[in-house]
Amino acid sequence: MTSAHDNFALWCSQELARVEDALTLWIAADAPANLGEPMRYAVLDGGKRLRPLLVLAAAQAVGQLDAAQAEAALRAGCAVELIHAYSLVHDDMPCMDNDVLRRGKPTVHVQFGQAQALLAGDALQALAFEILVPEGSAISDGVQARLCRQLAWAAGYNGMAGGQAIDLASVGKQLTRDQLQQMHKLKTGALLQASVEMGATCAGIQGAALAALKQYGAALGLAFQVIDDVLDVVADSATLGKTAGKDADNDKPTYVSLMGLQPARDYAHELLAEAQQALAGSGLPQTAALAALADMVVRRSH
Amino acid sequence: MTSAHDNFALWCSQELARVEDALTLWIAADAPANLGEPMRYAVLDGGKRLRPLLVLAAAQAVGQLDAAQAEAALRAGCAVELIHAYSLVHDDMPCMDNDVLRRGKPTVHVQFGQAQALLAGDALQALAFEILVPEGSAISDGVQARLCRQLAWAAGYNGMAGGQAIDLASVGKQLTRDQLQQMHKLKTGALLQASVEMGATCAGIQGAALAALKQYGAALGLAFQVIDDVLDVVADSATLGKTAGKDADNDKPTYVSLMGLQPARDYAHELLAEAQQALAGSGLPQTAALAALADMVVRRSH
Repeated sequence: MTSAHDNFALWCSQELARVEDALTLWIAADAPANLGEPMRYAVLDGGKRLRPLLVLAAAQAVGQLDAAQAEAALRAGCAVELIHAYSLVHDDMPCMDNDVLRRGKPTVHVQFGQAQALLAGDALQALAFEILVPEGSAISDGVQARLCRQLAWAAGYNGMAGGQAIDLASVGKQLTRDQLQQMHKLKTGALLQASVEMGATCAGIQGAALAALKQYGAALGLAFQVIDDVLDVVADSATLGKTAGKDADNDKPTYVSLMGLQPARDYAHELLAEAQQALAGSGLPQTAALAALADMVVRRSH
Repeated sequence: MTSAHDNFALWCSQELARVEDALTLWIAADAPANLGEPMRYAVLDGGKRLRPLLVLAAAQAVGQLDAAQAEAALRAGCAVELIHAYSLVHDDMPCMDNDVLRRGKPTVHVQFGQAQALLAGDALQALAFEILVPEGSAISDGVQARLCRQLAWAAGYNGMAGGQAIDLASVGKQLTRDQLQQMHKLKTGALLQASVEMGATCAGIQGAALAALKQYGAALGLAFQVIDDVLDVVADSATLGKTAGKDADNDKPTYVSLMGLQPARDYAHELLAEAQQALAGSGLPQTAALAALADMVVRRSH
C-alpha cells in the first residue's frame, strides 16, 4: 500500500531531478572568463529547491498540464531559484551579512572573491529573466510576459530587495510584530508567494482558485520565516549548513526575540493550518503536493 | 533656416525631457526603508542618456509611431538606462573598480554605503524588467516578451556581465586586438547594440532594415569604447566627471595602449563611417537622429 507520504517523496524526487537537469543545462556553461563557475557553484548541488517545487506543485494543482504549460512551469521554477540563489550570493558578501558558510560550503565570495561573487549574482538575476522568455517556444507570449511581470515585482523594490532594505535598516532596532511581518513579507515572502502565483500563471488558474493559492502562498511565506528564526536559535551550524545564531549575534529582530520560542512555534503551526484550509477551499483537484510542501516547511530541521 | 544640427538638438531636448520624466515617475518613489534614494541617486540628474536616445531614434526611424509603439520605446529606453545605471553602481564598488567619483558626484557606495549600493543595483536590474512588462498596457504581449528577451541577453553572461568577467580576468595581461574587441563587444557593446535592436522591436522593424540597424549598433558600440579609451588618456577628471587615467593606473589593456593614440582615433572614425553607411543602406525613412547620435559618440569630449 502506498501512503500519501510515499507519493510525495516520489513526486519530489522526480521533480527535483527535472529541476536539477534543467538548471545544469541552462546555467551558463559557455560563459566567458569562467563566469559560469561561480554561477554554477551558487546554484547547483545544494538547496532544498522549495521554490521550484512550489511552482511545479501549484501548476499541477489543476491536474494534467499540456507540454507548453509543463515547460513554462519548469522554466518558472528554475527562474525563481536563480533569483533566490543570486540573493544569497549578494547577501553573504562582507558588506551585507558577511557569511562564510552556505549549504555546508564556503560562500561564493570566499571561494571566488568578491568581484566574481558580485558579477555572478548580477548575471544570475539576468539569467532568471532570460529563461522565462525562450525564443520560438510553445509558451504563449502572454504567459511569458506575465511571468516576467510577477518575477520582477517579487525580486525588486516592492519585494525581496525592498525587504532586504528594511532588514538593513532594522539592525539593532526593536520592531513591532507588524513591522517584522512587513519585512519578512517582502524579504522572503514575496518570492515564495510569487512561486505559487507563477505556477498558477503557467496553468492558467484564475478567480477563486487563484485567490486561494495566494492565501496559501502568503501563509506559507510567513511560516517559512518564523521557522527560520526558530531554527537559528535551536539548530547547530552543521545541521543548518550555514552559521547558526547569526541573528542574535547581529542583534537582528526575530520572531523568537519578539514572541519567545514556543509562541513562535505555535504561530508557525497556525499559519500552516491557514495554508491547508486555503488549499481545501480552493476547488483545485490536486493539492496534495502543495499541502505536503507546507507541512515540510513547518516541520523541517534545516 | 533650421540646420540638421538644430533639429537634432531640438529632438534631443524633447526626448531627454520625456526620458527624465518617465525615469522620475518609475523609479521607486515608494520603496521601503529609503531604498528609493540610492536608486534615484544612481539614475537621475546625470548621464548622457545615450542608450534611451538610441532606443527612441531606432524606433522612430520608421517614421510616425502609434501610441503603443511610442510607449514601448519609452519603456525600453528607460529599461536599458536602468541596466546601465545599475552596472555603474556595482562597477564602482570597492571590490570592483573602487571608484569614488561618477558623473561629477560621489559614487553610490560612497554616498550611501556598500550594502545600500549593492541592494540599489540589484533593485534597479529588477525594475528594468518590471517596466518592460506593464500590466494592462496597449503594448502587445509579443513585444513585451521580446524586449525582455533582448534585455536579459544583453545584460547577462552573454553580454554585459560576461564582458565584465573578461575585464576582471584581463587586468595586467597583454590582450590581442581580437580579445580586447571581444571584451568590449560584450561589456559595453552588447547593451548599446540591444538599445538599437529593442528600438527596432518596438517599431516592428524586420529583415534588411533590421540587419542594417544591427550593423550600425555593432559599429557604434565599438566606437564608443575606443573613444572611451582615448578620453581616459587625454581628458581630465573634471571634464570626464569620473576619475581619469584609471585604466593606465590599473594596468588595464585599452585601444590606446594597444594601437597608440592617433591610430585609436582613426579607428573610431572608421567605425563611425561604417555606422553611417549601414544607416544609408537601411531603406529606413528617418535615420537623421541615429546618424547624429553616432557622430556625437565619436566626437564627444566626455
